[in-house]
Amino acid sequence: MVISSDEYRESLNDGRIVYYRGKLVENVAEHLALKVPVNHASSIYDLQADQNYRGMTCYNDDKLGNISSFYRIPQNTEELMQRHDLIYETTRLGRGQFNIVKAIGTDAIFALMYVTKRIDEKYQTSYYENVMKFYRYAAENDLSLALAQTDMKGDRSLKPSEQKDPDMYVHIVKREKEGIYVSGAKAHTTQSIAANELIVIPTRNMGAEDKDYAVAFAIPANTKGITMFARPLKEVETVQNDKLSVIGRKNVEVETITVFDNVFIPNDRIFLNGECDFAGFLAMMFPTFHRFTALSYRAALGDFLIGTGKLLAEYNGVAGKSNIRRNLSVLIKYKETLKANAIAAAYKCSYDKSSKLAIPNIVYTNVGKLFANENYTEVIKNIVDIAGGMVATMPSYEDFGNSDEEKILLKFLTARDKSETLDRVKLFQTLREFISSFGALYLAGMIHAEGSIEASILELNRSYDYSGSIALGKYAAGIEDHL
Amino acid sequence: MVISSDEYRESLNDGRIVYYRGKLVENVAEHLALKVPVNHASSIYDLQADQNYRGMTCYNDDKLGNISSFYRIPQNTEELMQRHDLIYETTRLGRGQFNIVKAIGTDAIFALMYVTKRIDEKYQTSYYENVMKFYRYAAENDLSLALAQTDMKGDRSLKPSEQKDPDMYVHIVKREKEGIYVSGAKAHTTQSIAANELIVIPTRNMGAEDKDYAVAFAIPANTKGITMFARPLKEVETVQNDKLSVIGRKNVEVETITVFDNVFIPNDRIFLNGECDFAGFLAMMFPTFHRFTALSYRAALGDFLIGTGKLLAEYNGVAGKSNIRRNLSVLIKYKETLKANAIAAAYKCSYDKSSKLAIPNIVYTNVGKLFANENYTEVIKNIVDIAGGMVATMPSYEDFGNSDEEKILLKFLTARDKSETLDRVKLFQTLREFISSFGALYLAGMIHAEGSIEASILELNRSYDYSGSIALGKYAAGIEDHL
Amino acid sequence: MVISSDEYRESLNDGRIVYYRGKLVENVAEHLALKVPVNHASSIYDLQADQNYRGMTCYNDDKLGNISSFYRIPQNTEELMQRHDLIYETTRLGRGQFNIVKAIGTDAIFALMYVTKRIDEKYQTSYYENVMKFYRYAAENDLSLALAQTDMKGDRSLKPSEQKDPDMYVHIVKREKEGIYVSGAKAHTTQSIAANELIVIPTRNMGAEDKDYAVAFAIPANTKGITMFARPLKEVETVQNDKLSVIGRKNVEVETITVFDNVFIPNDRIFLNGECDFAGFLAMMFPTFHRFTALSYRAALGDFLIGTGKLLAEYNGVAGKSNIRRNLSVLIKYKETLKANAIAAAYKCSYDKSSKLAIPNIVYTNVGKLFANENYTEVIKNIVDIAGGMVATMPSYEDFGNSDEEKILLKFLTARDKSETLDRVKLFQTLREFISSFGALYLAGMIHAEGSIEASILELNRSYDYSGSIALGKYAAGIEDHL
Amino acid sequence: MVISSDEYRESLNDGRIVYYRGKLVENVAEHLALKVPVNHASSIYDLQADQNYRGMTCYNDDKLGNISSFYRIPQNTEELMQRHDLIYETTRLGRGQFNIVKAIGTDAIFALMYVTKRIDEKYQTSYYENVMKFYRYAAENDLSLALAQTDMKGDRSLKPSEQKDPDMYVHIVKREKEGIYVSGAKAHTTQSIAANELIVIPTRNMGAEDKDYAVAFAIPANTKGITMFARPLKEVETVQNDKLSVIGRKNVEVETITVFDNVFIPNDRIFLNGECDFAGFLAMMFPTFHRFTALSYRAALGDFLIGTGKLLAEYNGVAGKSNIRRNLSVLIKYKETLKANAIAAAYKCSYDKSSKLAIPNIVYTNVGKLFANENYTEVIKNIVDIAGGMVATMPSYEDFGNSDEEKILLKFLTARDKSETLDRVKLFQTLREFISSFGALYLAGMIHAEGSIEASILELNRSYDYSGSIALGKYAAGIEDHL
Repeated sequence: MVISSDEYRESLNDGRIVYYRGKLVENVAEHLALKVPVNHASSIYDLQADQNYRGMTCYNDDKLGNISSFYRIPQNTEELMQRHDLIYETTRLGRGQFNIVKAIGTDAIFALMYVTKRIDEKYQTSYYENVMKFYRYAAENDLSLALAQTDMKGDRSLKPSEQKDPDMYVHIVKREKEGIYVSGAKAHTTQSIAANELIVIPTRNMGAEDKDYAVAFAIPANTKGITMFARPLKEVETVQNDKLSVIGRKNVEVETITVFDNVFIPNDRIFLNGECDFAGFLAMMFPTFHRFTALSYRAALGDFLIGTGKLLAEYNGVAGKSNIRRNLSVLIKYKETLKANAIAAAYKCSYDKSSKLAIPNIVYTNVGKLFANENYTEVIKNIVDIAGGMVATMPSYEDFGNSDEEKILLKFLTARDKSETLDRVKLFQTLREFISSFGALYLAGMIHAEGSIEASILELNRSYDYSGSIALGKYAAGIEDHL
Repeated sequence: MVISSDEYRESLNDGRIVYYRGKLVENVAEHLALKVPVNHASSIYDLQADQNYRGMTCYNDDKLGNISSFYRIPQNTEELMQRHDLIYETTRLGRGQFNIVKAIGTDAIFALMYVTKRIDEKYQTSYYENVMKFYRYAAENDLSLALAQTDMKGDRSLKPSEQKDPDMYVHIVKREKEGIYVSGAKAHTTQSIAANELIVIPTRNMGAEDKDYAVAFAIPANTKGITMFARPLKEVETVQNDKLSVIGRKNVEVETITVFDNVFIPNDRIFLNGECDFAGFLAMMFPTFHRFTALSYRAALGDFLIGTGKLLAEYNGVAGKSNIRRNLSVLIKYKETLKANAIAAAYKCSYDKSSKLAIPNIVYTNVGKLFANENYTEVIKNIVDIAGGMVATMPSYEDFGNSDEEKILLKFLTARDKSETLDRVKLFQTLREFISSFGALYLAGMIHAEGSIEASILELNRSYDYSGSIALGKYAAGIEDHL
Repeated sequence: MVISSDEYRESLNDGRIVYYRGKLVENVAEHLALKVPVNHASSIYDLQADQNYRGMTCYNDDKLGNISSFYRIPQNTEELMQRHDLIYETTRLGRGQFNIVKAIGTDAIFALMYVTKRIDEKYQTSYYENVMKFYRYAAENDLSLALAQTDMKGDRSLKPSEQKDPDMYVHIVKREKEGIYVSGAKAHTTQSIAANELIVIPTRNMGAEDKDYAVAFAIPANTKGITMFARPLKEVETVQNDKLSVIGRKNVEVETITVFDNVFIPNDRIFLNGECDFAGFLAMMFPTFHRFTALSYRAALGDFLIGTGKLLAEYNGVAGKSNIRRNLSVLIKYKETLKANAIAAAYKCSYDKSSKLAIPNIVYTNVGKLFANENYTEVIKNIVDIAGGMVATMPSYEDFGNSDEEKILLKFLTARDKSETLDRVKLFQTLREFISSFGALYLAGMIHAEGSIEASILELNRSYDYSGSIALGKYAAGIEDHL
Repeated sequence: MVISSDEYRESLNDGRIVYYRGKLVENVAEHLALKVPVNHASSIYDLQADQNYRGMTCYNDDKLGNISSFYRIPQNTEELMQRHDLIYETTRLGRGQFNIVKAIGTDAIFALMYVTKRIDEKYQTSYYENVMKFYRYAAENDLSLALAQTDMKGDRSLKPSEQKDPDMYVHIVKREKEGIYVSGAKAHTTQSIAANELIVIPTRNMGAEDKDYAVAFAIPANTKGITMFARPLKEVETVQNDKLSVIGRKNVEVETITVFDNVFIPNDRIFLNGECDFAGFLAMMFPTFHRFTALSYRAALGDFLIGTGKLLAEYNGVAGKSNIRRNLSVLIKYKETLKANAIAAAYKCSYDKSSKLAIPNIVYTNVGKLFANENYTEVIKNIVDIAGGMVATMPSYEDFGNSDEEKILLKFLTARDKSETLDRVKLFQTLREFISSFGALYLAGMIHAEGSIEASILELNRSYDYSGSIALGKYAAGIEDHL
């Protein structure tokens, strides 16, 4: 059963502990800054109610009834492509800003389905049943979910169990009959404040000595012992009344440091509990699903940049210049290479019979992701090269409210045609916000989210099947006579 | 009916006029250097007779019987992927070297099918029938084909009709009842000397004043008036007895400057004759098909480089180093990005009802092609970085024939393990040839073949559908309220 | 005679017309936001009074007495290197932020000296005398100067005189006996609000039809008819009380759109008046001087980034990793390549006897500048790659004021060592501000300021002396027998 | 006393053991292939006799008389710049090909002077005296020298003393009263066959267990026990009669694997003998000098590429196109960034009082060197992009000897103007050779010679003085109040 955006927003007023700029937040949905990420999240519920988008955002499941399409378990290339389109289109409808609250959780659930089947097989556990029970609960109640993976890590040269402070990685502090208690903290938990439930998984492989750190579970965001510290949303705060800035008033997500202080996890919500040999496998399988998602939303972000770049080139009157064409081709290549890798990942997916789901091809999710990480700043360079210096030095929206000033400014900001001047100003303003207020978030996000460049390179080397290439290398060098 | 490689080789002894190093060649199939490209081409016929590869290389057509799979007209994503696999695998079987003789001709035929349908519609001509007749003839006789597109061009700042010397672009010099006479020359015609027929198409768009330059046709390679000037094959000549070099003795293609001196083209072999408004369209449609082919063979070349790089990294004992992993990831990205774009081009193909064929998606063929052009030297940098200086300074194969010397050299060239030393030497030798004797060909080919970087950027800007991106740009900037 | 920073700040309370966020500013030195750029500018006066820096910032001129070192006219390599050091060190003392108010004006004055000598020679004008008079006035009164070059440009495909609105480029609207009247507007005038005088020069070459646009002059910032519209200083506004952010509270510059509405320029302040054949020459000579300045301040910015990156790498505990070393090497290369080009520009300077000044080598100023433009985003990518996601998602300074919260956050933000945690937080915060609040300014500035990438490429091609290279090309190819 | 090129060539007929293509070479100066590198080396002697170049190539030393300028010990910036110019100009006179035979040896001698002073100080040895004696001998007899540093290395993951085969690094096998005996082999010894003496130094740092590997010395090339295995010179062999190729007939160097089999080194020729703590220092100091040399000769190579690129752009008629300007700017940036770093290294040199020599600045030698390594393939991409496909597919020189053929080819190879056609052909031919026959050598050389990319990054991180940057980072972040 899908719910309304009002029901969703109300569900967040549940006593959760959130700090924003040093103050405890009473109700995130009504907080001056945090309501923007909540509203952004809620728009995904609005689309379920919108007859133009219902076909895309809702899915009628045989057993679960009318659920969010995000909760549909993909079975083949076509359904993976539908998931890609769902993420791509909802990101476009979010003005190029990803809407994570159902995507990331289902990525994690799919990975958990796949991995827990294998844990259960080896250890006769029943985690898969727990995952499926949680999945049905979340789908049937149309929940929003956040995923907490990256630990605080402390000294990067030490393993979890070697840290001076054991809380540097989330870990089990006590085991009881009904469940376990966990402590620690996770960084960069996107939209935790707007999620009904938090899913927690390990961030790396673990040895036997790290047994207590091999833990995965799902738990409501208002569970006792959970505290979230939000980053400051300057991109929201500084445009409250800025009529020239839309994204900062409507389409922003927020991250938290999420602290777990002796939090109780009941048995049926535990998905990994000390099986350390599966920690790394789970830590790697989640990104395989989530990088497919990343390719999809980043392609939509790319689309926003292409549109903005093309419009600025035209309004500036330089669209036909050779160097500007080259700039635009960089933007196109970025978006379409991500899309091509998403398509290839779907086309070359594998089907896991035990967990009954289609898995995006790991080579293409990684190649696409690595390309996205490595080339984002090149994209920014090219769009700024198109835009020119005015993207930085344009006066503020208030200068366009004062009629005398506005008249002078519109006169002088006219480029190709007077009728386009205000639109040109809006584009400059939007791009300025994107590369300033949003700048740290996007730079860090596009370079680090879903795994850093080095992590992607490691994973690509680790998972790549070199056997065919090596056979060809030997054949070509005359080491072997046949391929 | 597919033919044998012996029949194929014999078919080339047809009196064609070929110059090699200043001398007229009697029979290309027996010429000391040119027999290598002929034999390379003939291997595609051998694969048709090989029971392991027959299933891939042959296709049973309802009307034409057992034909080469290259001649199969793709109808959908799956058949485009089969064509991709065909090109990819035959290139791998050619030790990473493309085997062009059926691929490029069918790319041209498909483009001609598509374009002539439209010319016929506008001008009530019957070119499509000519194309289909030629197609059936070529398929039924299992012919090898070459494609001549790039004109000599003379002064690049002038149009064809503005050139001092009118022969700088191939053009019609006389029109008679039974056909036309053409003169001019085409550059870089790959494997013309190994082709039964040459297909000629325009290299650019033409205005009304360039009417006589808007010409396309197919003609046997031994037609009177055709002279081919081959490039020198140093990669072949210098390894005649070099037991450490396989590719140069077996898998080389050759290009010619192909001169047309008053060559008669009979009416049923003409595909364009003065309809200047279609010259540019044909010049652009051929690459759409051929760039899909290019992505396919270049991915196989990438596979060769991955295998060679990975083996060298392992033999050198450095495969686990962070910087070497980074090098290898560049090779993987190269190959797999090309493959991802090929898959996306097939998956997002369009079907043309009038000419009854599936057309690869132009965005992905261009994005993939541009990526291939722009990043090839980066790939070379990375594989050389892996290999180390010995790729240049290793002694010659003769030094390994002399037993005393060989003993010393094998002692000192041992890296990880003695058992691998000779294989390591072969890899160095193969890579050395690849970046030296083959160097100019590959650099020019990978940067210019199937269209230069600037041409690809132009085409990408021209053909890209910006409308969705622009809508998003306006919506995100608040210029429009809805997407 | 150098003045105090108090005297300087008072001098700005002169009735100048400045708009900030839609409001007329009474006194820039006391305005909540604008006082930060004023104070930043004033620090250059403080350094003149500081005994530790007096030796560097002041110079005892034979005729002018004790003046700012910026006003010293360089005579040779050594003095150019002193100017480089002056700019480099004052930028470091500004926490990596350039302090433009004396540097840019003297760059313009030096260019004007050089160019007006040549105009006078051709047209028997006396502009050089005007320039020198202005120079002495500015030096003796220790003035701050702004330079307005980039016009609003309107339709980029049209020349100044072809624009629909003639005001798109600053131009002469009336000529009278005592002087001229000018109208138009200039974009991106840095620190105009903190300058005593504005120097105005053309932005491009001009034909005879653009005669009235060939104009250069200097005029007090409070001259009737001048209106300045400042960009909004979010980097200042949002850190007013932010104890973790220093740069935004102390070291910011501001740009304006500077409008000229029928502004009177007295004869002795005119440096170009219709001599259209010198407009392009002046437009090009100023950057030659100013790009030398740019290399100097950008090297200091690079130093800030190296320090920040190195500290973050160490605090994060990853400084010894191969990929982090690679990141750091990118930062080092950036700074030192700029410095190397500055040194080479000074070492290979030329001396102009007529205007009695040393001119930095144009090849190195352009090569260095182009490198700076093209590689800035690569630098940002690498420092963000070092920093990790926390650079975006760290809580705000207020979260560190609340003692309970602070305790938890400091626990979890500890990496290598507890004693470094707060310093680590400050570095994250500083870098976050740098790539967000400062982001648009820096991206636009580093890519466009002192000339865009395309402009630099054009200039490099135009000014490069190819003769030696061509001689070598011909000799190497056997076209010529001797070099 | 400088000698004549005839005397030099005769000096090489000394019984040295050289293998070329499996055969012992009787006299390198008369060998069909090896005479080319010998003649190239000898041209440096011709320039000493040429009155136009004598001023540059010869130097009148107070004590040693008229010696080669290469042997002049630089004392300051000016003399380092003279050395830079000497290398730069002699490389240009070698058609862009470095002439190593005096440059590399003196680089090694300077490094040995510096390092042995410190060894002697610590260990009361007298190596400095040995070095100076060898220096005077070499200078007075105008010797050519080769430098052997890179060991064969075997398993890269093991230290010298850990290798299965102890000969993988050159080492001391026996110590006697009059001297020591060494065995092992060195790779990539450039122009050893054309050198009178070989200087041998360690390739890496050594621990106590590698004591016997810490050895440095100089020894005549014909010393008993030395065997050299040359790489095959295809760039020479294939152009013996090629009138269109000059470089391959005149300006080629050769590398050998240089094997030492129980070679006796007399005491006065030993410069390091077990002082393992100085092995790494010497291994690092030599590159500091030699990278300065590398910047100088590579700038000249860059000049060759600029000239070739510019001429091809003009002959092709495309020099004015935006994308071609961009290509050319890449070539210019390459050369001039190397030159800028050379100038900066000279300008910021340090003077060592103990060994009485000026040392190029290590930051700039490394930054420039790293830039040269990392960007070479980008340069190649850009020149090939300018040249077009004809650089690969042009017929051979023999096709231009046959008058009928030549007539046709010259007709069709005419671009901008008929008078330029043959020159255009020569440029294509020269560039083709450069990127094919010379390809492996240049790719490996430009990426690996004088230290690989990873080695340069390591060295840059190791030697960079971060203290000023760190101070600025702390000051900017508010960690420290003062700089």
